[in-house]
Amino acid sequence: MERTQVAIIGAGPAGLLLAHLLHLRGIDSVVLERQSRAHIERRIRAGVLEQGSVDLLTSVGLADRLHRERLVHHGVELLFDGVGHRVPLSELSGRELTIYGQHELVKDLVAARLATGRPLWFDAPAVSVEGVEDAPVVRYVHDGREHELRCDVVAGCDGFHGVSRPAAGGALREYEHGYPYAWLGVLAEAPPSAEELIYASHDRGFALHSMRSPTVTRLYLQVAPDESAESWPDSRVWKELAVRLGRDQGFELTEGPIVDKSVTALRSFVVEPMRHGRLFLAGDAAHIVPATGAKGLNLAVVDVAVLASALGRFFADGDESGMDAYSATCLARIWRVQHFSWWMTSVLHLAPDGDPFTRRLQLSQLRYLTSSTAAATSFAENYVGLPFPEGVT
Amino acid sequence: MERTQVAIIGAGPAGLLLAHLLHLRGIDSVVLERQSRAHIERRIRAGVLEQGSVDLLTSVGLADRLHRERLVHHGVELLFDGVGHRVPLSELSGRELTIYGQHELVKDLVAARLATGRPLWFDAPAVSVEGVEDAPVVRYVHDGREHELRCDVVAGCDGFHGVSRPAAGGALREYEHGYPYAWLGVLAEAPPSAEELIYASHDRGFALHSMRSPTVTRLYLQVAPDESAESWPDSRVWKELAVRLGRDQGFELTEGPIVDKSVTALRSFVVEPMRHGRLFLAGDAAHIVPATGAKGLNLAVVDVAVLASALGRFFADGDESGMDAYSATCLARIWRVQHFSWWMTSVLHLAPDGDPFTRRLQLSQLRYLTSSTAAATSFAENYVGLPFPEGVT
Repeated sequence: MERTQVAIIGAGPAGLLLAHLLHLRGIDSVVLERQSRAHIERRIRAGVLEQGSVDLLTSVGLADRLHRERLVHHGVELLFDGVGHRVPLSELSGRELTIYGQHELVKDLVAARLATGRPLWFDAPAVSVEGVEDAPVVRYVHDGREHELRCDVVAGCDGFHGVSRPAAGGALREYEHGYPYAWLGVLAEAPPSAEELIYASHDRGFALHSMRSPTVTRLYLQVAPDESAESWPDSRVWKELAVRLGRDQGFELTEGPIVDKSVTALRSFVVEPMRHGRLFLAGDAAHIVPATGAKGLNLAVVDVAVLASALGRFFADGDESGMDAYSATCLARIWRVQHFSWWMTSVLHLAPDGDPFTRRLQLSQLRYLTSSTAAATSFAENYVGLPFPEGVT
Repeated sequence: MERTQVAIIGAGPAGLLLAHLLHLRGIDSVVLERQSRAHIERRIRAGVLEQGSVDLLTSVGLADRLHRERLVHHGVELLFDGVGHRVPLSELSGRELTIYGQHELVKDLVAARLATGRPLWFDAPAVSVEGVEDAPVVRYVHDGREHELRCDVVAGCDGFHGVSRPAAGGALREYEHGYPYAWLGVLAEAPPSAEELIYASHDRGFALHSMRSPTVTRLYLQVAPDESAESWPDSRVWKELAVRLGRDQGFELTEGPIVDKSVTALRSFVVEPMRHGRLFLAGDAAHIVPATGAKGLNLAVVDVAVLASALGRFFADGDESGMDAYSATCLARIWRVQHFSWWMTSVLHLAPDGDPFTRRLQLSQLRYLTSSTAAATSFAENYVGLPFPEGVT
């Protein structure tokens, strides 16, 4: 029988950052990850960090490499009617965006965890979470045998398909929304074709030009949810990107070898509350946003920042008020971000039924957004990230 | 055979205001109205005028009584979660709202038309509009016989069900959107229960507290599209209004005799272009907005202001550029207003399927709108009315 204060299931950004924030408060934890280290350090995910996320990572000493290698953006482009319109995010909001691949951040977080000497087990799937009402026990497999880990608190950071959320035994309410389209994402060894992100609303469907570094471009195309990556050979991908990202003048798409290609569903999901007894859900285990707003990683950062504060007070002097407030504190901001992500998705993607009334409304919104200072400011403050909840440091 | 420069079909605010604006430019017109004068002067319609509409009416001498009798509003209240949140429209936008019943404005416009001595025929339904490509002829019935009116231009101001739009013979494209709810509207001889409008988003459905004067309240309840006014006896109306407009503290609904009660469908509709040959559509003949944003009357004012400018140039020296630009000039603003009206409708009404994800998004939007200065400013600039198109005086 093993024992720790906090069993953290999942070594994504949520679990690893939580582990670090607890370590700084002198709280023991065990991090369990079902995948290998190589797998999670290579997995292509998000790449846009809000300034609030960067500030937090910086304040806890996790952003040295990030500051050396990141790209800093001060605006995004909205492309429609064949014309690009730059929204000057920093000018409107006073904040900036950081481009830094999630897997790079995961590498930094893994290294930081290993440096503390505290346990982080790879290839260690949790198989059950029990007793979350009062005396949690996590069973997991590692090194060919089953382990039993007793703990005061379980942090479920194991994503949408993890074992943590079901451990609440149906006590949580789930909110869900699907979208009638998906994203084909490609990673290309090509310099970005523009300095900033380009969100294109085209009559053939949405496209997004993003990047991970000065030599790696990340590109997305709206596709049908049932399309497979195999139906998109590289030549077709480039041709379609050139059409959707094209404009009346002054743009050339830089091509290069495609090294990753996959189709991702778009989904909105929230569980309420995010706590059941001594089980706390964070990140994708508690909520999924469609990728359009680039918010998933940033929401996870806020969750674990709130949770670490709450657990700090609990382990310091038994004060449960932070744990009691955890769910409501996170959910107010999560629903705001859910709405923003839903809105950004809805305004940019082509509805498969092609309803012309809806298309006109989309274009009217985009024209308004790029011509009204108030509307652009509202967009900017959401896109760069609304303030963290009070009391989170 | 009769003859005029502009045959105006319909003596609603669009037709009557156009007639006056043409009169000021020395342009002849005949106004044909299928209803009686008493009917159109009593018909209960909108009651909220944007400052731009009032400024225009004032500048052409049609707002003397309006300025004496109107109520001026500087904000609206959004009520949700049992708490009212005032949005200070004037503070945010620098403009004000005018409350003045549409039928009162119609009375003023009828009086102004009659004072000019130019023709305005009541009980005179247009039965056909022909030759709009080059030599329009309007046939109408008046005083028991059929008349034939030749003209240079036909202004179709006869509403959604009028004869003007079909006269384009299918050359126009129609955009339409329906809503799965309707409004039960009541007019009550009771002083308003609050000084400003209250838009309530309640778990039982939307409600709106509005007014026409210091002694007349106008109230609305979201109902199913197939409900009849008969299924809403007065006692039920007051009870439901009290629930939906109720709050945790400090509000009492003032009751009084209900003198008008009707169910109105909510619909979005736009026709493109708004012109075919010498036929020009304006107001409800060209577009319908759901009533939530209080925009229908204000859109009609802009249409005829643009049209009068265009016709002024045409009749002065044959310059058709204004007529050629009419549709595009109006439609850019119309689609903006269509989006705003759709958005305001969607955020405040309860979806009949009760999807809980959608409800959470609604509440998150309302909370954001009442807490972000940028979002409130964007709302305010739309609600008080975006600027008129350039060149309209």
